[in-house]
Amino acid sequence: MELHGKNLIGYRVSAEGSASISAFNPALSAPLTPAFYEATSSEIAAAGDLAAAAAESFRDRPAADAAAFLDRIAEELSALGDPLLDRFTAETGLPRERAAGELARTTGQLRMFASLAREGSWVDARIDHALPDRKPLPKPDLRRMLVPLGPVAVFGASNFPLAFSVAGGDTASAFAARNPVVCKAHPAHPGTSEMAARAILAAARACSLPDGVFSLIHGADPAVSLALVRHPAIRAVGFTGSLRAGRALFDAASQRPDPIFVYAEMGSVNPIFILPGALAERSDAIADGLRQSVNASTGQMCTCPGLVFASAAAPFAARLRDLFRQSTPATMLHPGILRSYESGLARLQSVSGVASTASTLDPDSARTQARPTLLEAGLDEFLAHPELGEEVFGPSTLLVHCDSPAGFEAAARRLEGSLTATIHGTPADLESHRSLVSLLAARAGRILFNGFPTGVEVCPSMNHGGPYPATTDSKFTSVGTAAILRFARPVCFQNFPQSALPVELRDGNPAQIWRTVDGRFTHEE
Amino acid sequence: MELHGKNLIGYRVSAEGSASISAFNPALSAPLTPAFYEATSSEIAAAGDLAAAAAESFRDRPAADAAAFLDRIAEELSALGDPLLDRFTAETGLPRERAAGELARTTGQLRMFASLAREGSWVDARIDHALPDRKPLPKPDLRRMLVPLGPVAVFGASNFPLAFSVAGGDTASAFAARNPVVCKAHPAHPGTSEMAARAILAAARACSLPDGVFSLIHGADPAVSLALVRHPAIRAVGFTGSLRAGRALFDAASQRPDPIFVYAEMGSVNPIFILPGALAERSDAIADGLRQSVNASTGQMCTCPGLVFASAAAPFAARLRDLFRQSTPATMLHPGILRSYESGLARLQSVSGVASTASTLDPDSARTQARPTLLEAGLDEFLAHPELGEEVFGPSTLLVHCDSPAGFEAAARRLEGSLTATIHGTPADLESHRSLVSLLAARAGRILFNGFPTGVEVCPSMNHGGPYPATTDSKFTSVGTAAILRFARPVCFQNFPQSALPVELRDGNPAQIWRTVDGRFTHEE
Repeated sequence: MELHGKNLIGYRVSAEGSASISAFNPALSAPLTPAFYEATSSEIAAAGDLAAAAAESFRDRPAADAAAFLDRIAEELSALGDPLLDRFTAETGLPRERAAGELARTTGQLRMFASLAREGSWVDARIDHALPDRKPLPKPDLRRMLVPLGPVAVFGASNFPLAFSVAGGDTASAFAARNPVVCKAHPAHPGTSEMAARAILAAARACSLPDGVFSLIHGADPAVSLALVRHPAIRAVGFTGSLRAGRALFDAASQRPDPIFVYAEMGSVNPIFILPGALAERSDAIADGLRQSVNASTGQMCTCPGLVFASAAAPFAARLRDLFRQSTPATMLHPGILRSYESGLARLQSVSGVASTASTLDPDSARTQARPTLLEAGLDEFLAHPELGEEVFGPSTLLVHCDSPAGFEAAARRLEGSLTATIHGTPADLESHRSLVSLLAARAGRILFNGFPTGVEVCPSMNHGGPYPATTDSKFTSVGTAAILRFARPVCFQNFPQSALPVELRDGNPAQIWRTVDGRFTHEE
Repeated sequence: MELHGKNLIGYRVSAEGSASISAFNPALSAPLTPAFYEATSSEIAAAGDLAAAAAESFRDRPAADAAAFLDRIAEELSALGDPLLDRFTAETGLPRERAAGELARTTGQLRMFASLAREGSWVDARIDHALPDRKPLPKPDLRRMLVPLGPVAVFGASNFPLAFSVAGGDTASAFAARNPVVCKAHPAHPGTSEMAARAILAAARACSLPDGVFSLIHGADPAVSLALVRHPAIRAVGFTGSLRAGRALFDAASQRPDPIFVYAEMGSVNPIFILPGALAERSDAIADGLRQSVNASTGQMCTCPGLVFASAAAPFAARLRDLFRQSTPATMLHPGILRSYESGLARLQSVSGVASTASTLDPDSARTQARPTLLEAGLDEFLAHPELGEEVFGPSTLLVHCDSPAGFEAAARRLEGSLTATIHGTPADLESHRSLVSLLAARAGRILFNGFPTGVEVCPSMNHGGPYPATTDSKFTSVGTAAILRFARPVCFQNFPQSALPVELRDGNPAQIWRTVDGRFTHEE
């Protein structure tokens, strides 16, 4: 596939503006060709208008059509093969096995949402039969289900060019609920984005879906993102990235004449609490696991643990310092992310009482490699300096010395929302720190016991979300089957004749889904 | 019960400010005693702080405790008896049978949410068992359920002093999910509000719930509402009222450092489409039903139909004009609402081409009665003047003359979001207006066939919601069991020991709820 660098406005290739965006190979410190055309206002408007028109027919297609579309996208993506993996590694500096793993995860997600759409029970169908003889008033026949929300704007993430980008979980779940998608490619990996977009459009053609069911626009200027969020047809936004960018989209969406939903997954410190019993039992294993979790993908995972609360007992902290001294510097996604990492580290290091142990191995000369760094502070410093609780995106973590139940609780109360929170402990630890579980469940989307937060399963019980600033909407997950609920809303049909009802709500349950009928869950009727 | 007019900050009675709010009997045009104390900043802050503390213990109480609390509130409310109904009618001008009916609805709602909490399946528990031998990585044990969101601010509605106010659906669903509530009484019915609040507090004491699980504050100044929405402990807002007030709360909530959820049910025109076959078959019955629906509770229902699209064929329009000429003027909730109604009518009447047929019966001299009014316009006028699609709260409706499928579709595309949309038709009408159903389902929360929208059932399949401006969050209903989903969010527990898991997620299903286990709905395991 030869990259053309142009916007894909529905089935049309468009290059009204100038080719101003270039990708960059961070491992080689070299620009990549071709240049990509930033979308103009009229291209953004056209993508939104086409999506509005496509929404009207896509919403009335059978669920099986959405399922076939998703399966076909997975096939088309897989068929891209080595050139896709080559471009992915060139644009990110991530290793090839990560590219292959992320492609497998992405096609797996697409197929999971295909199954979900095909099975169909996710629409939460509820039927309450009429009671014509009820006094004082008869009860009407009421049937409710979830229907598509409308066109969705998806913003590609820098750190997952496939799984959280053009054909990632946001797009897959929006399509599964039969919504058109207008995607803005992340400017750090426009080539991977174009390839994924063309796979989606090939699948859309093969499935005879309407023009506008998918568009891809390019843009490095925030004005492109804001224009997309403000397009009247757009009903929801899916985003993974920084707090600053996510909040800007949220503000634009909330200030529209008709506010729309923003599902932005943003900053998260993912605190880990290491309780005394666990530390006594397996201090070395915890230190090893923590080092590995912090350095996974050069610390560029949403679930990278940036805060650790544990006793300052010598062996644990000493081993952790040794491990960080020996950690290998590694390439970050692009030079801008490296600069942010370094200035974030400097910000924390400037707080009085914060000690720092960095890798002693030299980064390469290209200035794209980050030095793994362990920071340390006392609990008093942590409680006195709220900025120590803010995320630094990259391979560092702050160890806060803390060794009493009251100290752990005081720290937990101070935490902002996170995607994850983790407890290492023994059964006896859990007994003596009972309220810590409850405090963390109130502040995180997922809480882990004796594990590390990096690594997010794709399944029905996953929750990849959490209170602000982890996300702008803690009621929803961006990973797992429940992600589809972001892009649907309920409609109730009152006294409608069978022939005019959606198939999911008809008598006899022709769609064969789980429904709540007169208050009872059933698959039978 | 002697009314004291003071704020109820948890279990404490507080009157720091001045008694500046007086209720008013609109039927007698007379003020009511006592005066009520507007809440001060420190009282609002104290209510929020207490709610934050109460949230920590309430969230860990068994679901049965929330159920017992709700049942007890229903008992305490019922026990208030005649004095409650007397105050309700005095403060609203609504007839006594409406007061009694609304009380029954309110206690019914409380008991429905008690059952929902006690049964427990609403938490949407999902369990994916570990696969320790999976390659390349083992799969952890993941268990997810909905947990309480945190303290909720509830704003009482002017038009439903019981069912959508202090002890109404918002409060009941927030309590069912084990969230504390800080309620702001509507200044038009502060006495009814105080009585309901004292019933709630009596129930809270009887159930040994923590101080702060409920507070009631009074306020006529918008600053009181905004201070409550901005309190750091508040996590969500429930509101029923005007677009202007709802949007102000939404804006304040969205502009917080940590934005919170606003479930505001606001303006809605509730369009009715009368198709030719239905008009030919039963023009008189439709005209009669429409007149009744428009005038129900003097047009002060959220679902009052403010727009009707139908052929200008003589018998229907002529009968409707006759019916409105003969409709009796009736008392509105308070003089301010009457003034808004009159200025809203004048705004529509000033559009060129709009005709008007008002009741010819004289309102009483108290100037609190509204004159039922039928407005008429052509489809071209409607399409040319967007203001004709805006809500006028009160007993009027705008009949737009329209008689082709293309005309109905053009009108439907122009509509903003509504709580309801209605089609009157025959089976043949539905066949020839197929896309109308789909267009309306995309713009309303509930669509009705051959009925009238006033009257909202309280049951699992109800959806009382809809796209903006009907509400600020079309994904949720404020009526029916699904309303509880507004006040909860998912948390996933990874590899947690059984003893530290919530009972809903433990092996063997001790809570006996419906769960999704390894992708399968089951009640067994």
